[in-house]
Amino acid sequence: MNIVVEGGAPAPEGLVDAVLAYESALAADDLDALASAFEHGPHPLRGDRNGLLIGHERITGFRSRRGGAGPRDVLELRIHLAGDDAAHVTTVNAPSSGGRGLVTQLWRRGADGAWRIVAAHVTAPSPALDPRIWRVLGVPLVAGAGEGPLAGETVAVKDLFAIAGQRIGVGVKAYLAEAPVEDENAPAVQALLDAGADVLGIAQTDQFAYSVAGLNPDYGTPPNAVVPGAIPGGSSSGPASAVALGQASIGLGSDTAGSIRVPASYQGLWGLRPTHGAVSLERVAPLAPRYDTAGWLTRDGETMRRVAAVGLAGRDAVAPAPGFLAAPAAMMSCARGVRDAFDAALATLAGAGVRPLPVDVPALDDMLLAFRLTQSAEAWRADGPWVEAHPGALAPDVQERFDFARDVTPEQEADALADAGLLAARLDLELGDRILLVPSTASAAPRLDADEAELESRRRATLSITAIAGLTGRPALSVPVLDTPDGPVGLCLVGPRGSELALVDAGLALAAILRNPGETSFGHTV
Amino acid sequence: MNIVVEGGAPAPEGLVDAVLAYESALAADDLDALASAFEHGPHPLRGDRNGLLIGHERITGFRSRRGGAGPRDVLELRIHLAGDDAAHVTTVNAPSSGGRGLVTQLWRRGADGAWRIVAAHVTAPSPALDPRIWRVLGVPLVAGAGEGPLAGETVAVKDLFAIAGQRIGVGVKAYLAEAPVEDENAPAVQALLDAGADVLGIAQTDQFAYSVAGLNPDYGTPPNAVVPGAIPGGSSSGPASAVALGQASIGLGSDTAGSIRVPASYQGLWGLRPTHGAVSLERVAPLAPRYDTAGWLTRDGETMRRVAAVGLAGRDAVAPAPGFLAAPAAMMSCARGVRDAFDAALATLAGAGVRPLPVDVPALDDMLLAFRLTQSAEAWRADGPWVEAHPGALAPDVQERFDFARDVTPEQEADALADAGLLAARLDLELGDRILLVPSTASAAPRLDADEAELESRRRATLSITAIAGLTGRPALSVPVLDTPDGPVGLCLVGPRGSELALVDAGLALAAILRNPGETSFGHTV
Repeated sequence: MNIVVEGGAPAPEGLVDAVLAYESALAADDLDALASAFEHGPHPLRGDRNGLLIGHERITGFRSRRGGAGPRDVLELRIHLAGDDAAHVTTVNAPSSGGRGLVTQLWRRGADGAWRIVAAHVTAPSPALDPRIWRVLGVPLVAGAGEGPLAGETVAVKDLFAIAGQRIGVGVKAYLAEAPVEDENAPAVQALLDAGADVLGIAQTDQFAYSVAGLNPDYGTPPNAVVPGAIPGGSSSGPASAVALGQASIGLGSDTAGSIRVPASYQGLWGLRPTHGAVSLERVAPLAPRYDTAGWLTRDGETMRRVAAVGLAGRDAVAPAPGFLAAPAAMMSCARGVRDAFDAALATLAGAGVRPLPVDVPALDDMLLAFRLTQSAEAWRADGPWVEAHPGALAPDVQERFDFARDVTPEQEADALADAGLLAARLDLELGDRILLVPSTASAAPRLDADEAELESRRRATLSITAIAGLTGRPALSVPVLDTPDGPVGLCLVGPRGSELALVDAGLALAAILRNPGETSFGHTV
Repeated sequence: MNIVVEGGAPAPEGLVDAVLAYESALAADDLDALASAFEHGPHPLRGDRNGLLIGHERITGFRSRRGGAGPRDVLELRIHLAGDDAAHVTTVNAPSSGGRGLVTQLWRRGADGAWRIVAAHVTAPSPALDPRIWRVLGVPLVAGAGEGPLAGETVAVKDLFAIAGQRIGVGVKAYLAEAPVEDENAPAVQALLDAGADVLGIAQTDQFAYSVAGLNPDYGTPPNAVVPGAIPGGSSSGPASAVALGQASIGLGSDTAGSIRVPASYQGLWGLRPTHGAVSLERVAPLAPRYDTAGWLTRDGETMRRVAAVGLAGRDAVAPAPGFLAAPAAMMSCARGVRDAFDAALATLAGAGVRPLPVDVPALDDMLLAFRLTQSAEAWRADGPWVEAHPGALAPDVQERFDFARDVTPEQEADALADAGLLAARLDLELGDRILLVPSTASAAPRLDADEAELESRRRATLSITAIAGLTGRPALSVPVLDTPDGPVGLCLVGPRGSELALVDAGLALAAILRNPGETSFGHTV
């Protein structure tokens, strides 16, 4: 090990020993030693490519989940002095698994004479690809037409869509192992290629797309790109994380119960669930055909406008009626931070002359139940035989959903279908041709260490709102303009069937007001 | 932007302005402002996932090659105080290209009152894959047999080998665009899969494998994993960088004139060029069949032993005669640092009773010329028609090599073949059945900013040594045990034909002595 102190000064007493003791504690995953090596309180920081953890509690919480850093040798240790009792330490390490790591730390000597870390920044060697996000990648994987409205864009394709020469994996390793090689692209993929976009790769999904959390035990849970330590949202989790991280510019996903809107909301993206039936689902693995849609995720509204125009080419564009609606009843299931952010947004919009009219929607529980029963019955028809033939292949939460689905009787489904029809009719009557504004999700992204009960209650709360578009087949656009203390949440615009492009235009207009209140006036000309 | 000073203290005067001015200078790529924002002299540091730059000169040299950081917003700025005139600053930024970046810096106030950076650590969002290293990747791309001596290993396959369902790209985009999809794996690939290894992906190569530098203008030059800012070595550059970075555990490469040994030497890897003809080249794009071989790169000798045993299964294993040889004449072309490291290694080996006998080898220039003329003529036959039909498709240095190759006349080739035969016969006579020890390369990896003349002289010096195995068809193993001030260099063991496994055993024994001098004695029992 090469130790260099700036200017050739001696190293402060005890510092090198403290740094090396910390390395040993890392190698041994000695959580107590690691916790006491950091200063306590709200100010210590630890950051890496997954984000910045702030405060002693978050840092120790991270460690308890990680399970140690692998063995590594310190090759070089450089010290810069900063005052009498502080030093900046840079170490270059050689992990036994290859590559080089870089660690920089600000250490401070406490009143007790002990050195402790105040801030640490860690760069470990990167894997070739992040299997939590991607299953296959290329430079690109499939080259597009080269020119067209999407030239220069890169697409992350959810692992439900056929790509010629590749298999469909639906987020389940055991399924992939038996899947045939596809000989043709899904039309939804081909449309993007024809418009000039390149397909960069196949991105991960919740198993069978049957979740909105984004967890995946087979490949690992994709990171939330904007809220370190939070779930990504799913089931279009891989495309969403890829786009949010800047690894692709377009996510091609699917949305049955919220699988585009939820990860868009949790990661600050634009996400469009088109009108049911508007985008071909040919050569796309189904979950519940009555509700399944294919749609997109982007980082900005202009890109979404171009993607939607390509993806919906040849369909009639419907113009919504002027004015917006809001559904106070839908706010009941939302977390406080979401209600506050939504109310603040409405107040800002009001200042620009946009005043949504209140509208009555059916009871959230009723919508959720009718949606859930009918979706489940369809999911069992689509995937039940495979699930039954492969015990143990699925994550417990997804398996539980299929277990529930298996037990839905034909009578229950028939009743639920009748309910769903009535609820949809009532929603259509209330919403008419106007655009409804609701939060895209009932909360910001829950933490990865949230307990199952919390995840389940957040899920139900969110699904009771997303069911509005699900039951009616209406298009829904999530626009990243709400900020809560726990992270971003989308503002969801639910429009009349066929109004996708108008929704994007309206979303752009609303976003302009909300980002520059007082500087933008709204001309609702659709 | 959220600004937090630890403990709620006011920020030191001028510090936030200095941080933001630095961000502006980055956005504008204002090299002067960036250079003066760092303290001068040998101590400032700047590190990121590509390594640590030490000293003002290296940092500014890096900037002049980079061309700015893209536009980004600072979301959060946190300050920890360290003495009266130093502060640690952490910023979280949102690049307009997506994701989040993290920057930590130690700032110090100079005697002139100005704040300057002493150390900076930068984490920018990672791309989905590094196109300099990989062209296609999967989780894995091709699953192996699951069990066998290579179970758990991951392979980076140089883009010369056929993989069923994929194209061969030979490091040239224009070539890839016309390449057919392969319907079968190359036997060299299949052998690894059958032994349990997974193929992780297809890794980059110098264009047509016709270089030992590792530069590639089509996909970018792979990073040297252990010497920041140095060339990776080629032409098996992608597999070498992938293995050195820990992204794969086995590199499958080819070596015509040094294309495995050189990147192994430059990046501290084990690299084995087998006996000419020992490993099938079926379904592998040729460069010069008279010299082409397929071989492997690994991080450690034990893995190389297992890989070689798999790759050479069914071939007779030849035992070299006891004792080693050294060729003083071959040291003539080596850089001072290499000669010193080689001499030091010999001294250490002597201490353990290993005393190579001096051996005479033909003049380096003669070997280089005969090799170069015969290789060129073959390269033109293999690839000339494609090159001629695609003007402008190649990098200037590779094009220059093909231009030279085109002009080699049949008479020149015939003369050179006769010379090559005589040189090989003379080498065989001198080397007999013993193992020759030479440096794998004549220098450590040149810097990326080395001028063309330097690169060319290093190349010739190295190729005059690697030609010993090339001309004789002997196997050669590069073992990462020499350290020079400019980076690692391999110790190359050139053995009699068929002695690969014995070479690896000998390499392991020599490495054990050199890593623990005085603790290991050598029992040369082969």
